Amino acid sequence: MILEAAQLNVQSGQEKQFEAAFQEASKIIARTPGYIMHQLHRCLEVPGKYLLLVQWRDLESHTVGFRQSEQYQEWKRLLHHFYHPFPVVEHFEAIHP
Amino acid sequence: MILEAAQLNVQSGQEKQFEAAFQEASKIIARTPGYIMHQLHRCLEVPGKYLLLVQWRDLESHTVGFRQSEQYQEWKRLLHHFYHPFPVVEHFEAIHP
Repeated sequence: MILEAAQLNVQSGQEKQFEAAFQEASKIIARTPGYIMHQLHRCLEVPGKYLLLVQWRDLESHTVGFRQSEQYQEWKRLLHHFYHPFPVVEHFEAIHP
Repeated sequence: MILEAAQLNVQSGQEKQFEAAFQEASKIIARTPGYIMHQLHRCLEVPGKYLLLVQWRDLESHTVGFRQSEQYQEWKRLLHHFYHPFPVVEHFEAIHP
């Protein structure tokens, strides 16, 4: 199992619209093969900063299965215009527990 | 419930020692009042990079209860010398789901 962690920086004043769009976009990612679960968290210290955590069965489910899918175009259309700068996305494997 | 997210950068060549020390340090954080659970993840793209996620009952359980405790001195002694640069630690509240 792989954890995708993305630091999202939403442009000032667009937080509510982003959160609404994310609700819609959630349905897209959730029906991707290899998707397990996701969480969106809002930062307490930095306005407009969010942490997206997605658990995937394996790395390729995200990097190939999702990102090269047709529905990824819809995900991009819903969300990418909110971000500045563009997100840093990394993948992790759990070592504890 | 609050999520603490810390990006840890462990100095090159010290990853195995860090992971062993973290196992030991886990016992310290786990007995702090307000602690719920934690996970340590190793980055696939960046050598020496880790993501520590800790769930706390509330912000003060971490910022006051843990950081001002005696056992935090032991946590620091076990772990802080591995990090360079020093970690960025932020707190988040879940908005989805």
